[in-house]
Amino acid sequence: MQNFEIVSEDSNSSARRGVLHTAHGDIQTPVFMPVGTSGAVKGITPALLAETGTSVVLANTYHLMLRPGVEVVEKLGRLHKLMSWRGPILTDSGGYQIFSLGSLSRIEDNGVEFASHIDGEKIFLDAETATRLQNRLGGDIIMCFDECAPFPCERSRVQKAVERTIRWAKICREVHKVSEQLIFGIVQGGIDVELRRHCAEELVKLDFDGYAIGGLSVGEGSEQMLHTAEHTAPLLPREKPRYLMGVGKPAEIITAVRAGIDMFDCVLPSRNGRNAYAFTDTGPVRLRNNIHIDKTEPIQADCDCYCCRNFSRGALRHFFNAGEMLGPILTTVHNLRFYQRLMAQIRGAIEINEFEQWARQRLATSNEAARTEI
Amino acid sequence: MQNFEIVSEDSNSSARRGVLHTAHGDIQTPVFMPVGTSGAVKGITPALLAETGTSVVLANTYHLMLRPGVEVVEKLGRLHKLMSWRGPILTDSGGYQIFSLGSLSRIEDNGVEFASHIDGEKIFLDAETATRLQNRLGGDIIMCFDECAPFPCERSRVQKAVERTIRWAKICREVHKVSEQLIFGIVQGGIDVELRRHCAEELVKLDFDGYAIGGLSVGEGSEQMLHTAEHTAPLLPREKPRYLMGVGKPAEIITAVRAGIDMFDCVLPSRNGRNAYAFTDTGPVRLRNNIHIDKTEPIQADCDCYCCRNFSRGALRHFFNAGEMLGPILTTVHNLRFYQRLMAQIRGAIEINEFEQWARQRLATSNEAARTEI
Repeated sequence: MQNFEIVSEDSNSSARRGVLHTAHGDIQTPVFMPVGTSGAVKGITPALLAETGTSVVLANTYHLMLRPGVEVVEKLGRLHKLMSWRGPILTDSGGYQIFSLGSLSRIEDNGVEFASHIDGEKIFLDAETATRLQNRLGGDIIMCFDECAPFPCERSRVQKAVERTIRWAKICREVHKVSEQLIFGIVQGGIDVELRRHCAEELVKLDFDGYAIGGLSVGEGSEQMLHTAEHTAPLLPREKPRYLMGVGKPAEIITAVRAGIDMFDCVLPSRNGRNAYAFTDTGPVRLRNNIHIDKTEPIQADCDCYCCRNFSRGALRHFFNAGEMLGPILTTVHNLRFYQRLMAQIRGAIEINEFEQWARQRLATSNEAARTEI
Repeated sequence: MQNFEIVSEDSNSSARRGVLHTAHGDIQTPVFMPVGTSGAVKGITPALLAETGTSVVLANTYHLMLRPGVEVVEKLGRLHKLMSWRGPILTDSGGYQIFSLGSLSRIEDNGVEFASHIDGEKIFLDAETATRLQNRLGGDIIMCFDECAPFPCERSRVQKAVERTIRWAKICREVHKVSEQLIFGIVQGGIDVELRRHCAEELVKLDFDGYAIGGLSVGEGSEQMLHTAEHTAPLLPREKPRYLMGVGKPAEIITAVRAGIDMFDCVLPSRNGRNAYAFTDTGPVRLRNNIHIDKTEPIQADCDCYCCRNFSRGALRHFFNAGEMLGPILTTVHNLRFYQRLMAQIRGAIEINEFEQWARQRLATSNEAARTEI
């Protein structure tokens, strides 16, 4: 059996509706994966997270290797036990975090030395180690160790990162032997279409279970990001899942699905939720705003989440103002439900072959909403 | 119908098993009320709170009058709507908080002027206002405005506080006209048994729906506190509920139930939970302790709470260390379930007339546990 099956395709765009089979259950794509950095999605219990319609969560190898350490995670029964998450888990390789959070000391052709952002400890990580650590963490999907070039960046540096990423991908593919874990390659290349093509072609030769587009959402802006994703997606095999890492805003997700992307992850719904920023179909709501002080309506009237079924905007504003944890908890619940409902709508629209029309209308509403933000 | 019914009494102690009827449902006593200071019990959703076995929660008039303001609470549909709590709510009068949190400027015979702990605003509160504010908040049980003397304190100051408390209680009794809200008097008098007797006698004449013992747990120590409660409880009418305010530790609750107390409130389970301190039948567990790093067992093996059914001590220790909100959330859930299970055990033991034996055994175990704390 193939790990990935395409259930239907939209005839007016590259959007596809698929199912990705993993050791901990099926993932209906296009899918949004909330980020559980250190083994917990911030501000929400796994039970409430499941209620939002979340099927798969992401955890960060970088954070977990530093704290509590991979050996400890193993002793505690690996990631699923630690997190109390019964569904699929994807672990990233640590590459992105080393380049964004760690203080880099040395990039070599065979690996990277960095200083932990927690205690400054010097740590060396390479493709083989990153793969073995992910094998031990026990996620259902693991990612290749890659070099993520900063933005902006000289072409020669991006090219070097692409070459290392290809070299490391070969090692990861070879080292990875755990049959119940899928492994995805990561295409790098910044916003350079030729480098993206080269990287994609080399990775496709290695026959990964899926392909990610990495190194975006690092400052290049929404337009360049989407342009690069739209260019890269068709270079990846139709029959394998495509994952756009670290993306994004609702409109970016819709546009990327249209280009044939199947998987997304982003901290936006949870991070914004903790900061009193709620997503709605008619634009974002900033819950600290005084305008909400005596508003009895929920964040979004027709939302079925625990927050909207039980709490007014006035109550939420008060909880944020009073420093009550309930404010961040409830708004995280709402935002994640908002994202998962969006994904369900996307999947539904593809199934009935109406995605392109649906997407156009939705993007127009969302542009309108952005102008009336409160 | 009486508001309070005694279902059974323990023949070897003063413990009693009762039911207090309120506009939002029955309260089985002895009962523990979690503290929802600003309209939220910190670190837990109302849905999870109900799952712990909580029937009634407390909210603080002092905090709510300052933020978001009583008018705002009214506009948002009063306390039950704001908090999304369907069961009974008790509001305190603000007296205790003014004396403990507010910066006092003036105590007069007719009221108190204090500076808000939030923004320093000067506010005058008297018995009539405190009652009307509670009427408007919409709790099911409201409390008289009282003066809480500090500890230690000269007898003359305590005596003055008692006289004012009695005078104010008369005003509260008179002003309170909302038939669906019960009103409780508060006995003051520090640790002076004669002043307690005098205050109790005067309040009983006013025929309140229930009586609280206030002004304890303010630094006098567990022994003096329990001694005062044991002395004061029999001065209160047998047929009315008795509420020991701000108490306490599990062993204190058991001892006070033995003396005939029916109601308790305390921040201990939630505050300690947020600080990684978990209650168990075999003594407290400090979850930040390195000893738990790879422990796969839950906080308490036979606990039926969401935390213990799903998370290991090792996972909890990691969440606290990594600063994840899930640590405080889960430990609050466990601690409140621990308290509510204790209350259910107390009620069960009284029902079968075995409370005194049960209490002795439990207090012995708890003394033992205190010595083996980890």
